[in-house]
Amino acid sequence: MTNVELVAVGNELLLGDVLDTNTNWLCKRITGLGGMVRRAVMVEDDIETIAAEMRGALARGADVVITTGGLGPTADDMTLSAVAQALDVPLELSAEALALVRAKYVELAKQGYVESTELSQERRKMAVLPRGAQPLYNPVGTAPGVVLKVENSTIISLPGVPEELKGIFTTSLQPFLKELLGESVFIEKMVIVRCGDESILAPIVNKVAEEHSDVYVKSMAPPFRPEKKIPIILSLAGSDQVRVETAIEKALGELKRGLADAGISIISIT
Amino acid sequence: MTNVELVAVGNELLLGDVLDTNTNWLCKRITGLGGMVRRAVMVEDDIETIAAEMRGALARGADVVITTGGLGPTADDMTLSAVAQALDVPLELSAEALALVRAKYVELAKQGYVESTELSQERRKMAVLPRGAQPLYNPVGTAPGVVLKVENSTIISLPGVPEELKGIFTTSLQPFLKELLGESVFIEKMVIVRCGDESILAPIVNKVAEEHSDVYVKSMAPPFRPEKKIPIILSLAGSDQVRVETAIEKALGELKRGLADAGISIISIT
Repeated sequence: MTNVELVAVGNELLLGDVLDTNTNWLCKRITGLGGMVRRAVMVEDDIETIAAEMRGALARGADVVITTGGLGPTADDMTLSAVAQALDVPLELSAEALALVRAKYVELAKQGYVESTELSQERRKMAVLPRGAQPLYNPVGTAPGVVLKVENSTIISLPGVPEELKGIFTTSLQPFLKELLGESVFIEKMVIVRCGDESILAPIVNKVAEEHSDVYVKSMAPPFRPEKKIPIILSLAGSDQVRVETAIEKALGELKRGLADAGISIISIT
Repeated sequence: MTNVELVAVGNELLLGDVLDTNTNWLCKRITGLGGMVRRAVMVEDDIETIAAEMRGALARGADVVITTGGLGPTADDMTLSAVAQALDVPLELSAEALALVRAKYVELAKQGYVESTELSQERRKMAVLPRGAQPLYNPVGTAPGVVLKVENSTIISLPGVPEELKGIFTTSLQPFLKELLGESVFIEKMVIVRCGDESILAPIVNKVAEEHSDVYVKSMAPPFRPEKKIPIILSLAGSDQVRVETAIEKALGELKRGLADAGISIISIT
C-alpha cells in the first residue's frame, strides 16, 4: 500500500475564508487508485512551517507527499522554497518550466486574458523549481505542477486553485500516479440499514471490524432524525483483486448475519 | 493572539468519503472571535496517531487544541482515549457526562427515536472522559463535547457530525471560548479589482504586504476567465480595535494607491 500525505498551504484556509475541497478531492482519487492518504495537514504561508511538515511526512515514511497551494506569482506563494529547504536543494530556473509558463502567457494573450507576454520577475517565479524537479503541464492556469523524486519518496506540488489542481491531476499526473501506486484495486460497499441509533449498531459493527481487521468498517452516525437510516461502509484496497473481493464479501456476510440476529433490516447495499 | 490548532479525526475523511466542513466552519468562528488557527490536521482513527498530534500541538505552544470526531459509541471512536494517552491521565466514567447521556436517551425515547433508555456499554462509553475533563451539553446528539484544561492549554473535543458540533459550539462552547480568546476584534476587507492576471497584481500586493507586515494581504488567484476579476483580502485580528482599524485603513490606502498607479480599477470594497 502506498502511503500518501497531503499538505494544504494557505492562510486563507486557516482564516476560514476558503473551504479546502482539494484535500477531499485528492483523497477520493488516491483511494480510488489504490493508494492510502494517511494524514492531511493545513498550514500557513510560512517557509519553515511548510518545510517542517515536509520533513515530518518524509520521516514518517510517506511514499508520496502532495502539496496544494502556494505556487503562484506572489511573494506569499512559497511552497517550492519550502520544498527546497526541506530537502536541502537549491532553487533554480527550470528551462522546461519556463517554456510552459511562456507558452501559457502566449495562449492567454491570444485569448485576450492578458495584455503582455513579457516574462516579468513574477511570472518567471513560477518556473523556479527545486533542483531535480520536473514541471507538470497546467492546462488551466499559469503555474506548472511540480514533481520531485527523492530517495524513497516523491514530492508533488499542485496549485491551490481547484480547477488548476484537477486539470493537472487528470492530464499530467494521473498516469504517473497509476505507475507510482502500482496496479491496485479499491472496493467499497455501503450498506444502509433501518436503524436510528448508532449505539445499537455499535456491537455489530465492532464485531465485524474485529473479526475482519483488514477491512475498514464504519457506521456513519447521523443526527437523530425521523427516517432512522444509518449507512455502514466497508472498504478495502489491495493489489490482489480476488483477495480484496473475498475479504469484502466475508465481512459483508458477517455484517448481514449480525444485523439479521438483531432484527435490523437492510435498506440497500451499493 | 490565541493560537488554536485543530485535529480532525476519521478514516472516512482520509478515504475521501466525507468532505470535512467542520474545520472550515471552526476556522471562521475562531477567526471571528479574534483567535488564530495556526494549523489543522486530519488523521486516522488510531490512538497513537491522534495522541502524537495532540502532543505536537501542545509542544508548539497551542493555547487551544480542538479535536473533531471520534466521540461516538463505536470502537473506532477513540479520540478521548488518545487525549488521555497524550496527557497521561486515566479515563474514567464522568457522573456529569453520564447524566447528560442518560437525559438525552430519555428525550430520544420520548420522541420515538430509540426504543430503550438502558445505558448499555456502548452508550456509557460516551461518558468516559479523561480525568479532569468537563462535559459540554450536546443539544443535537448523544455524545457530549469535552473540555479539559491542562497546564497552559485547553483541549476541546467535539463530535464529527456537523450539526452536533455546531450545536455544542453555539450553545455550550461559544461563551467559554469568548472568555478564553479574550476581548478581541477581527477586521477583514475584500477589494475586488478589474484585473485578470495575478502576475500583474503581484508587485502591488507584495509591496503592501511588505510595508504592512502586521496585516494579512492576499490576492485570490482565480482561473483565467473572461470577467477579469480578482479579490484581494486584507485582514487583521488584535485586542485593540482602534489599532486594528488604523492598520487596515493604512494598508488599504497603500493598496488603492498601488492599484491607481498601475491603472487597475476597483470594482468593490466590502
